[in-house]
Amino acid sequence: MSNIELKEKFYTVIFGTDTPAGKRFDIALIIAIILSVLTLMAESVSDLTDNYYIYIRTLEWILTILFTVEYILRIYCSPNPRHYITSFYGIIDLISILPTYVSLLVPGVNFLLVIRIMRFLRIFRVLKLVRYLTEANTLVRSMAHARRKISVFFLSVLVLATIFGALMYMVEGPENGFSSIPTSIYWTIVTITTVGYGDITPQTPLGQFIAASAMLMGYSILAVPTGIFTAELAHEISRERLNIICPNCSAVGHDHDAQYCKMCGSKLKP
Amino acid sequence: MSNIELKEKFYTVIFGTDTPAGKRFDIALIIAIILSVLTLMAESVSDLTDNYYIYIRTLEWILTILFTVEYILRIYCSPNPRHYITSFYGIIDLISILPTYVSLLVPGVNFLLVIRIMRFLRIFRVLKLVRYLTEANTLVRSMAHARRKISVFFLSVLVLATIFGALMYMVEGPENGFSSIPTSIYWTIVTITTVGYGDITPQTPLGQFIAASAMLMGYSILAVPTGIFTAELAHEISRERLNIICPNCSAVGHDHDAQYCKMCGSKLKP
Amino acid sequence: MSNIELKEKFYTVIFGTDTPAGKRFDIALIIAIILSVLTLMAESVSDLTDNYYIYIRTLEWILTILFTVEYILRIYCSPNPRHYITSFYGIIDLISILPTYVSLLVPGVNFLLVIRIMRFLRIFRVLKLVRYLTEANTLVRSMAHARRKISVFFLSVLVLATIFGALMYMVEGPENGFSSIPTSIYWTIVTITTVGYGDITPQTPLGQFIAASAMLMGYSILAVPTGIFTAELAHEISRERLNIICPNCSAVGHDHDAQYCKMCGSKLKP
Amino acid sequence: MSNIELKEKFYTVIFGTDTPAGKRFDIALIIAIILSVLTLMAESVSDLTDNYYIYIRTLEWILTILFTVEYILRIYCSPNPRHYITSFYGIIDLISILPTYVSLLVPGVNFLLVIRIMRFLRIFRVLKLVRYLTEANTLVRSMAHARRKISVFFLSVLVLATIFGALMYMVEGPENGFSSIPTSIYWTIVTITTVGYGDITPQTPLGQFIAASAMLMGYSILAVPTGIFTAELAHEISRERLNIICPNCSAVGHDHDAQYCKMCGSKLKP
Repeated sequence: MSNIELKEKFYTVIFGTDTPAGKRFDIALIIAIILSVLTLMAESVSDLTDNYYIYIRTLEWILTILFTVEYILRIYCSPNPRHYITSFYGIIDLISILPTYVSLLVPGVNFLLVIRIMRFLRIFRVLKLVRYLTEANTLVRSMAHARRKISVFFLSVLVLATIFGALMYMVEGPENGFSSIPTSIYWTIVTITTVGYGDITPQTPLGQFIAASAMLMGYSILAVPTGIFTAELAHEISRERLNIICPNCSAVGHDHDAQYCKMCGSKLKP
Repeated sequence: MSNIELKEKFYTVIFGTDTPAGKRFDIALIIAIILSVLTLMAESVSDLTDNYYIYIRTLEWILTILFTVEYILRIYCSPNPRHYITSFYGIIDLISILPTYVSLLVPGVNFLLVIRIMRFLRIFRVLKLVRYLTEANTLVRSMAHARRKISVFFLSVLVLATIFGALMYMVEGPENGFSSIPTSIYWTIVTITTVGYGDITPQTPLGQFIAASAMLMGYSILAVPTGIFTAELAHEISRERLNIICPNCSAVGHDHDAQYCKMCGSKLKP
Repeated sequence: MSNIELKEKFYTVIFGTDTPAGKRFDIALIIAIILSVLTLMAESVSDLTDNYYIYIRTLEWILTILFTVEYILRIYCSPNPRHYITSFYGIIDLISILPTYVSLLVPGVNFLLVIRIMRFLRIFRVLKLVRYLTEANTLVRSMAHARRKISVFFLSVLVLATIFGALMYMVEGPENGFSSIPTSIYWTIVTITTVGYGDITPQTPLGQFIAASAMLMGYSILAVPTGIFTAELAHEISRERLNIICPNCSAVGHDHDAQYCKMCGSKLKP
Repeated sequence: MSNIELKEKFYTVIFGTDTPAGKRFDIALIIAIILSVLTLMAESVSDLTDNYYIYIRTLEWILTILFTVEYILRIYCSPNPRHYITSFYGIIDLISILPTYVSLLVPGVNFLLVIRIMRFLRIFRVLKLVRYLTEANTLVRSMAHARRKISVFFLSVLVLATIFGALMYMVEGPENGFSSIPTSIYWTIVTITTVGYGDITPQTPLGQFIAASAMLMGYSILAVPTGIFTAELAHEISRERLNIICPNCSAVGHDHDAQYCKMCGSKLKP
């Protein structure tokens, strides 16, 4: 087998998803990614590291070496290696393996753990190739359309949170936990997003009144991103339906999973 | 009365809902199920078991024996007993009575309590047969259509929660309650779903900033399942309306409760 | 002035809203209701009752006597007194004044305070008559249409909460605050509605995992009532628009506040 | 250069956004506003004021003087100064600078901090002029349409919160933290908006039952503002699309970003 044939064969298996070998590779990759994320989690649980540290580290090294081999193969068989290396997933792939090697030199750095867990993002590439492409696209397109409306919304929330935060800092003051304006803004965001930890709560009647107003406001504000997104998505769904055109009678508005034209009965996708 | 006639009579009462006897049986069954769930709840309240244990257990036994008789009758009168036994509700029916008998042999097993409470699921069969069929169908169909979109959404939430969790584990660390990555992921899910128990809260300014970002992100993410479901449901409702076709003039788009065609005035359902 | 003329005059002022006198009466009534609710609130604040008890009680008595006079006048001038007395607002009117008189005989009964605060409901009658009629009707009609879908939803939430509650009672147990199944159900409802007090929280890893699952489930379930209501309301709004028909060219689809037909320019409501 | 020419030049730079100088001025203003809000926040953090008080105050004074110069220039170059001074943003501009001068006379007044932070609102003017005009308008118009529906909603929430509050005050009483009716109303709003601080929680079984009912009710009520806003926004979006009419064939329903008519292919905006 020539070098080019080998490259093509690898490319079909690693980047492709249509062949049985390509599918098996994708499933193996998903299992490896999940296993590796579970390993990273286990590494942070002191009960587990006390007894099983050596097993966890061994598994982490096996997986890292596998990912390294995969990374090298991807570069080798890619028709445009430079393009792959500088792409989003190329960088994620590198980030997935590098910190484990760095941890040999600089042991015990928590910071590397967070970088290593970024390898979980790789799962999107595998799944995206398989079948969620259309669905994710509809979601992303709806969000892109709503981008500017959502920016206006976030800016308003931020300005509102700042003014409410300053107000509560003045009314409640440091003695009731509102120790500074940034802390008060943190409290306001905790409140208007309806999270409500309860680590800081208003104690004075006036503070409780302002807090209740902020909640009811947050309650209504919650409707804004939901409304924006729903309206855009409904628009997107109806547009998707209009894109399916009958090749015989040109009727539109067929359901996403329709096989035959609802008007003339001819097959929609030959 | 012959055996076959008896079987048919029982079938009409137990499985049917149209006859007065069938309706009375359904109502009696609903009462028995609710009573039995209340009994199970009472069994877990120590104040009640201290004084009324014997009454609670007696009621539980009476109801279990009634359910056993019902189960045997269902097998007896079903036209296809094997099909009934292996069906979803057949298994639930068996699960509803078995643990009470097992508790005779292995007393005091909490685990059985949870299995026994699964009998609450039986209430759906009774209600489903009576009248909520159409409504539940619309809901289930909308959810089935949104299945893949919701899968994409859940996977994204999981990956996001893992990365945010690892980040908070690094920033806040075990000394502020973020004792491990799994615990941090638990905290992230508590936060982005806006539950916000407050059992673990960020203490450092950087941690509070990341937490506030996670909340605002969760706030926007909340819009996604709502938007998906609403758009699908609106589509489903408009489709339902289109399904009602006038037998005279073939006009569509009648309201769900319309009696006469709004175009030609002929009766819609003869 | 004859008795009948007097009755009619009172009726116009008390029940009517079109005359200046009727409007003034409505505004006075709104002020009296709000004042009286504030009085009831003040009565429960110990700081205020310590110093101003006599003023609070006096104001309460003045308002109760005014409401009593109003109630007697309403009976007197109503064309069908029996109908008024047995109507929803007739009962609320009676309930608004009775407990104050009863408190003379049986002093210090907290229970009466709650009944007296029901008088706040009277504000809906006044406002309803004035102008929010159409808006409230659209909301109520949308809710009535969604009634059966929402019943299915609530029943599912209840069954789910019971099963999750029993599961958590088994996993966490009384030593972690899940003292009985009813308490566990309370915790489950607090969790899946995303309220999250934090008075009871899971302590074991398995409990935290189940809790996180319940939250994500609650997150998706939150989409259901919103979706149902939005779809119904959107349907209702588009129907409202279709109800406005141009008397000249019969065009439909005019906006709610349109004055002239958008097709032929003739006035819509002559 | 004459006085009028100078006025016009200033007007173009300060109020206008089309020229490069106008854009640079807007960007400088945004930076100054954000810097000044950060300064105010820093002023409230005791760790920072202990060491850097003099720098923070100096920066605040520099920015205030810049804003003062800008305010005077705006009055000077405005074609109608009286109109500018009494406009919403004119008042915000004055409020942004006045408290800093007042703090010279009356030092250490927290109250002024809140007023000064109102200058954050100025950011809307700058951004509004630049490009978010259309988006914000759609949002504001949708909200204006939903105004009356939302009023009905808020009044209902308020009445409901009062009745639930009084009920919980009676059931739980001051010994469980429900110290007065206003406090109980605060608790009810914290609960039905799903914030759930957990600073006050029901302790009795009956109280927990009422609380769970209030949560499920709040859960459904949450659907109302979302539903109202979404339905209005979807209506608004579809109306926007209908507003784009092809000048050649008069077809409507083009997408917001469409360049050519989808029916006849002629350019939409010449």
